[in-house]
Amino acid sequence: MPKQKLVIIGAGMAAGRLLEHLFETAPDAFDVTLFNAEPRGTYNRIMLSPVLSGEKSYEEIVTHDDDWYTEHGVTCRFGERVVAIDREKKIVSGENGDVPYDRLVIATGSNPFIIPLPGHDLPGVLAYRDADDTDRMIEACKPGAKAVVIGGGLLGLEAAAGLRLRGMDVTVLHLMPTLMERQLDPSAGYLLEKELSGRGITIRTGANSKEIYGKDRVEGIRLDDGTDLPASLIVMAVGIRPNVAVAKNAGLDVGRGILVDARMQTSDPSIYSLGECVEFEGNCYGLVAPLYEQAKVCAAALAGSADQAFVHTETATKLKVTGVDLYSAGDFTDGDDRDEIVFRDPARRIYKRLVLKQNRLIGAVLYGETSDGAWFFDKIRKAEEILPEARATLIFGQSFAGGAPLDPMAAVAALPDEAEICGCNGVSKGQIIGAIDKNGLCDLDGVRACTKASSSCGTCTGLVESLLAFRLGDAFAAPAKKTVCGCTDLGHDDVRRLIVSQQLKSIPAVMQELGWKTSCGCAKCRPALNYYLIASWPNEYVDDGQSRFINERVHANIQKNGTYSVVPRAWGGMTTAAELRAVADVVDKFNIPAVKYTGGQRIDMLGVRKEDLPAVWADLNAAGMVSGHAYGKSLRTVKTCVGSDWCRFGTQDSTGLGIKLEKMMWGSWTPHKVKLAVSGCPRNCAEATCKDIGVVCVDSGYEIHFAGAAGMEVRGTDLLTKVTTEADALEMCAALLQLYREQGFYLERIYKWSARVGIEKIQAQIVDDAENRAALYARFLDSQRNAQTDPWAERASGQKDAHEFSELVLAE
Amino acid sequence: MPKQKLVIIGAGMAAGRLLEHLFETAPDAFDVTLFNAEPRGTYNRIMLSPVLSGEKSYEEIVTHDDDWYTEHGVTCRFGERVVAIDREKKIVSGENGDVPYDRLVIATGSNPFIIPLPGHDLPGVLAYRDADDTDRMIEACKPGAKAVVIGGGLLGLEAAAGLRLRGMDVTVLHLMPTLMERQLDPSAGYLLEKELSGRGITIRTGANSKEIYGKDRVEGIRLDDGTDLPASLIVMAVGIRPNVAVAKNAGLDVGRGILVDARMQTSDPSIYSLGECVEFEGNCYGLVAPLYEQAKVCAAALAGSADQAFVHTETATKLKVTGVDLYSAGDFTDGDDRDEIVFRDPARRIYKRLVLKQNRLIGAVLYGETSDGAWFFDKIRKAEEILPEARATLIFGQSFAGGAPLDPMAAVAALPDEAEICGCNGVSKGQIIGAIDKNGLCDLDGVRACTKASSSCGTCTGLVESLLAFRLGDAFAAPAKKTVCGCTDLGHDDVRRLIVSQQLKSIPAVMQELGWKTSCGCAKCRPALNYYLIASWPNEYVDDGQSRFINERVHANIQKNGTYSVVPRAWGGMTTAAELRAVADVVDKFNIPAVKYTGGQRIDMLGVRKEDLPAVWADLNAAGMVSGHAYGKSLRTVKTCVGSDWCRFGTQDSTGLGIKLEKMMWGSWTPHKVKLAVSGCPRNCAEATCKDIGVVCVDSGYEIHFAGAAGMEVRGTDLLTKVTTEADALEMCAALLQLYREQGFYLERIYKWSARVGIEKIQAQIVDDAENRAALYARFLDSQRNAQTDPWAERASGQKDAHEFSELVLAE
Repeated sequence: MPKQKLVIIGAGMAAGRLLEHLFETAPDAFDVTLFNAEPRGTYNRIMLSPVLSGEKSYEEIVTHDDDWYTEHGVTCRFGERVVAIDREKKIVSGENGDVPYDRLVIATGSNPFIIPLPGHDLPGVLAYRDADDTDRMIEACKPGAKAVVIGGGLLGLEAAAGLRLRGMDVTVLHLMPTLMERQLDPSAGYLLEKELSGRGITIRTGANSKEIYGKDRVEGIRLDDGTDLPASLIVMAVGIRPNVAVAKNAGLDVGRGILVDARMQTSDPSIYSLGECVEFEGNCYGLVAPLYEQAKVCAAALAGSADQAFVHTETATKLKVTGVDLYSAGDFTDGDDRDEIVFRDPARRIYKRLVLKQNRLIGAVLYGETSDGAWFFDKIRKAEEILPEARATLIFGQSFAGGAPLDPMAAVAALPDEAEICGCNGVSKGQIIGAIDKNGLCDLDGVRACTKASSSCGTCTGLVESLLAFRLGDAFAAPAKKTVCGCTDLGHDDVRRLIVSQQLKSIPAVMQELGWKTSCGCAKCRPALNYYLIASWPNEYVDDGQSRFINERVHANIQKNGTYSVVPRAWGGMTTAAELRAVADVVDKFNIPAVKYTGGQRIDMLGVRKEDLPAVWADLNAAGMVSGHAYGKSLRTVKTCVGSDWCRFGTQDSTGLGIKLEKMMWGSWTPHKVKLAVSGCPRNCAEATCKDIGVVCVDSGYEIHFAGAAGMEVRGTDLLTKVTTEADALEMCAALLQLYREQGFYLERIYKWSARVGIEKIQAQIVDDAENRAALYARFLDSQRNAQTDPWAERASGQKDAHEFSELVLAE
Repeated sequence: MPKQKLVIIGAGMAAGRLLEHLFETAPDAFDVTLFNAEPRGTYNRIMLSPVLSGEKSYEEIVTHDDDWYTEHGVTCRFGERVVAIDREKKIVSGENGDVPYDRLVIATGSNPFIIPLPGHDLPGVLAYRDADDTDRMIEACKPGAKAVVIGGGLLGLEAAAGLRLRGMDVTVLHLMPTLMERQLDPSAGYLLEKELSGRGITIRTGANSKEIYGKDRVEGIRLDDGTDLPASLIVMAVGIRPNVAVAKNAGLDVGRGILVDARMQTSDPSIYSLGECVEFEGNCYGLVAPLYEQAKVCAAALAGSADQAFVHTETATKLKVTGVDLYSAGDFTDGDDRDEIVFRDPARRIYKRLVLKQNRLIGAVLYGETSDGAWFFDKIRKAEEILPEARATLIFGQSFAGGAPLDPMAAVAALPDEAEICGCNGVSKGQIIGAIDKNGLCDLDGVRACTKASSSCGTCTGLVESLLAFRLGDAFAAPAKKTVCGCTDLGHDDVRRLIVSQQLKSIPAVMQELGWKTSCGCAKCRPALNYYLIASWPNEYVDDGQSRFINERVHANIQKNGTYSVVPRAWGGMTTAAELRAVADVVDKFNIPAVKYTGGQRIDMLGVRKEDLPAVWADLNAAGMVSGHAYGKSLRTVKTCVGSDWCRFGTQDSTGLGIKLEKMMWGSWTPHKVKLAVSGCPRNCAEATCKDIGVVCVDSGYEIHFAGAAGMEVRGTDLLTKVTTEADALEMCAALLQLYREQGFYLERIYKWSARVGIEKIQAQIVDDAENRAALYARFLDSQRNAQTDPWAERASGQKDAHEFSELVLAE
């Protein structure tokens, strides 16, 4: 039988492996011609990173050298592009001439995706894909020069690490909030970021590039928030796209990739395809494992065997940055039908998470300790049932499998006396046990007083309690502590304190460093952490919309039927004829079914369709109105009476003061909603004395009241103090709000905060201590610098969260 | 010297008296010609009433008969009208020929004023002015037939009394709220009305005639409120107008009357005038005393003496109705610069009031005991200073003058044992003293328990307390009682009870029957009484605007600068695009400077000029909006949350229930303002639990709360009860409101009423007693029948209180 003519387009890793299998199973079946656009044969593209970093040379990563091709009789047409495929005549046209085929394999791989930013074609802007790119990068490297890598995925980070190792000053720009979000969950992403930052790489997450600039070659990049980053090298590593051009031109069925069946056959039975250019059952592939699998199947198919079929399976990832232990596999997205096992050791920077579904492991993320990765991956691929008795110790991996579940008591019992329990204060187990015995201590407070253990950051509290229990037995009753939620053993006070003392500036950071028991928190802790981070780092922390409830996320109040209610701000309750007309016009234009005056002195449009929200806001904005935050844990309204402007009894300009307060305070996020009111006289028509903060004007000045309520509970305010000038009233109210912002627990109204902390303590900090009051006032004003952007305007212009408002349109 | 030719036009009482003086002082000076349109000479017009009543004959009241004229050589041209006066030629032209004069006296008197009602010229419609009118009335009298007298002044009431004595069924229609308001204050007017009513005369005050109907002669009269009164005789006695026709035609200076100087000379030195036809220093005269004075002055002037001058002085009035003792003199209007002494004896139907200014008596109204009238009148005319020592007993009159002030203790000491103290229960002084001694009683409650004295109507409470003090001396401490105000010793509870038990239906009735110490009450008691009367006689009592504060009177809230604030009703807080536009249009059209959303879920237009109010209301009415009563002691708002219509948490249709409550309750006057709210779930977004009445919807029904507050005080509501259906909730709330309306003291908010009465007692009456609840509900609905008229619409159409809104225009 004469040899069949086999043409292969592309000499990447998939093609290389295909040839190996083919020559192994059917060594004499084919006469092979191998086209490759790169002027070289197959090398281990995965190992380009060590080449870039200088840890390996190119030669070390070549898998098929010229000798190999010669030995196997492959006709190599390297450095020659394929121009066209004539499927009828079964001819492949290369730049240098035609080649007929009986069977054709397309393995064109993928192209790096280049973001069409202005300046993307300037010299010095590179993709990171092949050996040539690597060479160019190495060429461009100058120790101390600035490089920017766009893309915080696998490839981008490897590039960044490589450039850094070559002495460059590297910044990674990543659009998403955490690195490698496709392979890692936020906690692992956080650890990775921390690790890379520790290596001197600057990471900017949530960074949106706007333009690359430079005269003859790249000089830097500008972000959409105005940040300007000078750079002599910019690497784009934002993703790949299957290279389907030649297949598409030949009329093959193409989706995102070239469509293939389980035998890697395309829509033309004579043509096969494999590697990063294919699409199989909706999936495209970028990691090597499935590509090798495809090569095996394809080789069998070409050899005439029908008993092999490609099956889509989960893949595992490892980052090829020396010293970074990171492993992810399978599906680790959240979902109601899955549960998880999380283990964190903040001190050792370890994070492990297993995701289970119906008692079967479906995903794993490991950071810091990845030795069990393969063992877990095997269980994922096999969909092996995890038995209840194995579950408790599953996360400790293969070496612990079959062992007894950890008993915290046994664990502390097993600790040596010199083991450090409290890292902050350097207190050992022995010291704590000694103090318990010597002083007859029987509770946490006692241990804290005697040894200082657990008195600083508090993360060792659980350990100290275990020691107490271990030593005292039943005589120790662990206090029923109110924790933030089931995800942590810490209370709100500890969390607030630790966020500041440990400088934790993101939700994953908090969760990792404070040893959260879950990967991503829950509906209770996430909004709380988001608020605490905003309050602690007002001009740094970027609000996490996904940690907010729907109302705060879409800046409107969701109604029973899924529509929304929209309440514009009416400063101090005032409005105008023009505003009323604008509201009326909006109501008519968008067929809003109900309009209601609110008890908070505003107007509420009810029944607005979600997709209409941006347009409704745009119209309201045009009439000068902004969001009333009626949906927020934030400043709601400042109710006023008409005061000395109009009222016969008014002693001061209550409306004016109310407007000033509202203009000062709006946009501020707070532990819970905050309602204010200013009454012009003790008749108190604005009902100031049942508000969170209430000002009652009197002849001699302003009474500042606080801690009232009129919802589930009704509670008259307490008098904070009395001041004489309007300026003093503004400062006092702002200082009070700021103290509440800094001390209040999430979802704790001012009156509950006051009850917990004590009125006298609050007065001591605000009324008696002028310096502290001024500092609080200053902090409040500082925190407002970036808070007073109308969220409606941002969304009406499509700048922000466009996805929130378009989903219903897409569903149509 | 030849006699001068004196012509007198008119032979009324003034002319008769003039002739008497003239013939006395200058018997031969004049050749007198006396014209009279009536075919008779001078008679005592004042005594026509006894003629009408049949108590005197015409002959008995003639003052100058034919013999007298003959005797004094007067040429009588009776029954002949004067056609013209030729002042140049000094000739008076009568219907039967000319008469030359040297001096002319015009004494044409007055004409009755005929209201130009449709049908005023039908046969059977009479004025009441002269002997002919009297004859016609006597002719028309048929015992049992119906007569209507229009006008409740002096003449009208005399006519009514006369017709009644002749057996007719008489109704008096009077436009003003009390009879003879020009001569009597409301208390005396009330007693007069009661007396006349007792004689079988029907008095309708506040009655506005619309038309007289009948085919060939009068058959009846219709009022503008639709009342139809059949009558075969209608007497118009609504006032007189000076008869100036002949003088005006002659070119004399004429104002309301013929202008004269202090010597009764007109603008023509040859012509004099006197009587009801003249105007002197802006005054016209209708009572006989000044006319007689004028006659004396005029006679002297004609006789050539210049030493007499007419001086305007106060006059006194007596009603000539047998058995009615009534006397008024001088100026008894209220004023800041005057004070008053009032004595009332309800049982004897006595009312006396003296008005003083700068320690001088300037006015007196006496009813029931008028013997001191002349003595008081003398003091008024002499402007005699009332010394402090005389003041205390002044009101007891001449016989007491110089006596010691009354000592209530001495008075009760002087009473005989059998004197009745408590009329209700027939308890004598002896019985009370006996009970005190026998049972060792030491307080009012003891006496009430043992004897029943003072336990019913309570008006004898003061007397009983005096008896206790008399018997026990210092051992008796009179309780400090909270009275309505300084005008009475009664508390709110007594007043409310007595209004009902004594069927008191007007403010003067209350004041007289309950022995008010002032004539007309004060700013404290008048609004209270007005409310109690409205609440007690909902469909009978006519609201007294003058007993209301400015805001309730003009149905808008007065602002500091004298402008008003206007708040339309927004049912349950709901509005529409059309309403918003209407408000915006009004704001622009009337240049309203400020618009504010209110905490009560409405909109407030601030700074509306008073004169613009009716037009503003008309525009708001046209857009379907009515008064929000934001100014009233009445139902204010019903705040709602959006409830099950929109809210994810809403358990019931809170907005719907709120609207139903507001539609049921609006327009109702209450002791103090009433704020409602309906919350759709216990989250209580409508803040229902700090309202006067609050409904909190729960899954299983409706919690009815009440007695909350959020103004000067903050107070959470108490739970009244829980009901399961919306209908039950409506009934329960209405019954609660009605109980408060019936029991609350004026200006007592629901929470204060509840604290006074006790929650359990309120629950017993409303919750536990279904029959009573239903009755309260029915009474509330009944009271609303006439209450739900939009006060703005009434005023916008000019139907009501036009004077309130035109004053500023007039001032321009």
